[in-house]
Amino acid sequence: MPKRKYAIGVDFGTESGRAVLVEVGTGRELATSVYKYSHGVIDEALPVEGKPVRLGPDWALQDPADYIRTFQRAIPTVLRESGVDPADVIGLGIDFTACTMLPVLADGTPLCQLPELRRNPHAWVKLWKHHAAQPEADKINAAARVRNEPWLARYGGKVSSEWFFSKTLQILDEAPEVYAAADRLIEASDWVVWQLTGVETRNSCTAGYKALWSKRQGFPAADYFAALDPRLGPVVDAKLSREIVPIGNQAGTLTAQAARWTGLKPGTPVAVANVDAHVCVPAATVTGPGRMVAILGTSTCHMVLGAQEKLVPGICGYVEDGIIPGLFGFEAGQSGVGDIFAWFVDNAVPPAYHAAARKRKLDLHQLLEAEAARLAPGESGLLALDWWNGNRSVLVDADLSGLLVGATLATRAPEIYRALIEATAFGTRVIVEAFAANGVAVDEIVTCGGLPEKNKLLMQIYADVTGRELKVTAAPQTAALGSAMFGAVAAGAAAGGYDSIFDAAQKMARLKKQTYKPNPAAQKVYDQLYSEYVTLHDYFGRGANDVMKRLKHLKNEARQA
Amino acid sequence: MPKRKYAIGVDFGTESGRAVLVEVGTGRELATSVYKYSHGVIDEALPVEGKPVRLGPDWALQDPADYIRTFQRAIPTVLRESGVDPADVIGLGIDFTACTMLPVLADGTPLCQLPELRRNPHAWVKLWKHHAAQPEADKINAAARVRNEPWLARYGGKVSSEWFFSKTLQILDEAPEVYAAADRLIEASDWVVWQLTGVETRNSCTAGYKALWSKRQGFPAADYFAALDPRLGPVVDAKLSREIVPIGNQAGTLTAQAARWTGLKPGTPVAVANVDAHVCVPAATVTGPGRMVAILGTSTCHMVLGAQEKLVPGICGYVEDGIIPGLFGFEAGQSGVGDIFAWFVDNAVPPAYHAAARKRKLDLHQLLEAEAARLAPGESGLLALDWWNGNRSVLVDADLSGLLVGATLATRAPEIYRALIEATAFGTRVIVEAFAANGVAVDEIVTCGGLPEKNKLLMQIYADVTGRELKVTAAPQTAALGSAMFGAVAAGAAAGGYDSIFDAAQKMARLKKQTYKPNPAAQKVYDQLYSEYVTLHDYFGRGANDVMKRLKHLKNEARQA
Repeated sequence: MPKRKYAIGVDFGTESGRAVLVEVGTGRELATSVYKYSHGVIDEALPVEGKPVRLGPDWALQDPADYIRTFQRAIPTVLRESGVDPADVIGLGIDFTACTMLPVLADGTPLCQLPELRRNPHAWVKLWKHHAAQPEADKINAAARVRNEPWLARYGGKVSSEWFFSKTLQILDEAPEVYAAADRLIEASDWVVWQLTGVETRNSCTAGYKALWSKRQGFPAADYFAALDPRLGPVVDAKLSREIVPIGNQAGTLTAQAARWTGLKPGTPVAVANVDAHVCVPAATVTGPGRMVAILGTSTCHMVLGAQEKLVPGICGYVEDGIIPGLFGFEAGQSGVGDIFAWFVDNAVPPAYHAAARKRKLDLHQLLEAEAARLAPGESGLLALDWWNGNRSVLVDADLSGLLVGATLATRAPEIYRALIEATAFGTRVIVEAFAANGVAVDEIVTCGGLPEKNKLLMQIYADVTGRELKVTAAPQTAALGSAMFGAVAAGAAAGGYDSIFDAAQKMARLKKQTYKPNPAAQKVYDQLYSEYVTLHDYFGRGANDVMKRLKHLKNEARQA
Repeated sequence: MPKRKYAIGVDFGTESGRAVLVEVGTGRELATSVYKYSHGVIDEALPVEGKPVRLGPDWALQDPADYIRTFQRAIPTVLRESGVDPADVIGLGIDFTACTMLPVLADGTPLCQLPELRRNPHAWVKLWKHHAAQPEADKINAAARVRNEPWLARYGGKVSSEWFFSKTLQILDEAPEVYAAADRLIEASDWVVWQLTGVETRNSCTAGYKALWSKRQGFPAADYFAALDPRLGPVVDAKLSREIVPIGNQAGTLTAQAARWTGLKPGTPVAVANVDAHVCVPAATVTGPGRMVAILGTSTCHMVLGAQEKLVPGICGYVEDGIIPGLFGFEAGQSGVGDIFAWFVDNAVPPAYHAAARKRKLDLHQLLEAEAARLAPGESGLLALDWWNGNRSVLVDADLSGLLVGATLATRAPEIYRALIEATAFGTRVIVEAFAANGVAVDEIVTCGGLPEKNKLLMQIYADVTGRELKVTAAPQTAALGSAMFGAVAAGAAAGGYDSIFDAAQKMARLKKQTYKPNPAAQKVYDQLYSEYVTLHDYFGRGANDVMKRLKHLKNEARQA
């Protein structure tokens, strides 16, 4: 019997980084360790000495040193806790939030580490949820529409303020000296792999989903960038790279320095970087068409694979080789899910339920779930539009807002809680149906993230509303497992790993036995409610009544007055 | 100087009955006493022994014995507390919720007091807010439209499920044995006057507003009733009366038995019964056209006087001599106002606000009002439709429900509280504009009820939204004062009272000095929000999208399953 081999996955989240050590043959998790970033999300003032440097509204930065500290703390911990010999760790993979990007020197030094730029906010890492580049996103969209840019349709017709070139253009607009000083502009995911391997590589996932790149057409043309700003024309050749490496490849091997950080052996293979959402797909056993992966958390990300290129209006985008080599990876999203329930629990539940939860030793979500589970579909008489945080897919409109209809004097908190869960389920169904209607099959839904574990009522409602069986990944940390799988693929079968992510998924990824099947009686009621949802969705979301935008405008005017 | 004379008004509300003893010369209130009905609103099960008799959804009953107990408890208390000699009490008036009706024997005995019918819900008093007769109201409306009944336009084109013949037809439909056993079907207001005087009289106010009667046309024809149900054809002659007495008249004098109940002298004049809302009009100093009286409480009732007959679509109705003799009394209403705020405070405010209210020694309404008052118009970004309890005017539709739009993850309780207040203000403006557009002038609004005292923010918002100056009645108990005024009129000037309600209003009714004037800057924003409100009002309320009705239907189906 050959000696057991191991791989490590490191998942860089919004507040912390997590390392997981897994057995390559089985995907079994032996140890996990979390490093909470010392500076977390920087959204008020830079963590610098002297006079405070305050940030504007919608800013969100990070400190790249926190990423290195994640390697230095979390990987040694999982090695120690598992007792695994570093020589038996055959590969390392990482995944990251995206688009999370930073300006660096040619040698990889982050500009925020240069004394002369440390007090300039634009020299720091712009986190995915940095939303201050909306003017730049508007400019990018307007120019693309005017020029009829061919790549725009791949992104459902709209570029987000979160994406790479929105953030890049904001640096250029607001801090041309930072832009000029940046030899490279790079995704944090690729930057950490660079720090591990000493080699700058750029992965196909972030390039495709966040930086307008495609395997067949490359990046937008220089004259398009020049149309945004003449100084931006040469950006790709000057500060990015046209060499994009498909995920599933090896990026390089561990340098001596990175080996010292981590306690791993120099020369350990490191996978090309991945995105935290997308890396979950093979870890959820999905390596082919027909099975959607939904990561259900504060927001929801939906990914489906397809053999053919298809245009699906309103989705976030699709990228060939973006998730699994050789396939098109389609992505959609709901911008508010768990955070709507959290809003409700924090802001709209009276004391009696808090007291009952304490008495029954439940958290408030559990209590409301238990109460809401006693209601039949339709029984609340309520219907909501799940737009408390805008709508990502398929309307791509951050200015939409939440709506609740059907309230009476007899309406109680668990009914609203259930209506909010149902609303997010209807939002998922809109996305599922958009895919299906445009030739991207969705036959079942594999879920991961925090909610599937926490809320069985939600899972059953999603099955009933979408008419699809819902499954749940077995791995407690799906993203980190996915990264470890890619680490095992970077090592290759000859080294005790796998030659492809397909092979890795077969051995390392598992689902739970319990699944959620649609209940035909509930489906029948939910079909009626869904039809009502769609009517309201289109009325408020497609221009028939732009009251939500006008209310937001009045709100902004009142706040500025 | 002649000896001071006194009158007593008894106001029968939803949860309790209140007696007020006032000085006839000045309207000064000397004593007040409240009797809380022992059975309150009966909406779950009948208060009978043995196996429970459960009530269906939307049922609301009362026990007529509670009305007699109100006389027995509250009147002796005000006599005792004021120290007034019963011989100096020259008249007694009563006002009641309406349509609140009951089936009785020829001698006035309520059918629910007969052992053989006590367990039949239809034998009890149907309270104004009994809403289970909607199918009957639908039938009444459909038949009236088909037959082009001339009286339908007087009621804004729609008869409510709350009204007399909707309730009557429900008894006939569901309990023909109760219908057959009922020698008389009568408003509770007239029934209590009958109990006081020994004489069955029927007042012009409830007959006009609730039972389709008019001074010039009488009741609908027998063949109309027969078209609803052949057994109903003779209902007016068999179980009602064509003799309708205008308010402002004497109904009779106190019987020996009623004198024993109350401690008053036998022979004390008793006024024809009135409705709790309508009796407030002269007590609010209004005895002529141009000044709306709005009673702002759990719901709102709006009354305006006019010299001419005008058709106003969607109002509750108009009755000649219905409020003030010689004038047309127009009535409209909002079915949910204070009870929407109460619903919110009870069901949707998190513990932190409860704690802050305790700390600041405020009730939760006061705290939310103070927090909401810090917001500018439009600043919440929210808009609501105030239909938590359906819509009375101008849509006349109990199946409509509440809506909130504009919610975000940053929305907090005081913003919703303010949006709900604003929604009821917009609802009032719809009514004011309907009157004005149809020739019934509304130049200012005189308010009474609980809310004007409690919520100054609401008063200012109403002024800003309607563009009308708001005034407030000085009497703490406007309805009871109005009833006492009618008691003084029943006595007549010769006995120390007044010969007309006009004279009584001049001496006994007063307004507060503080008024609420529209703020032009706020009006400008509210004009925009009102326009949004009207768009949603018409979309959800006038058939473009009947989602509220369909949600209610699904709810009822789910509950019955």
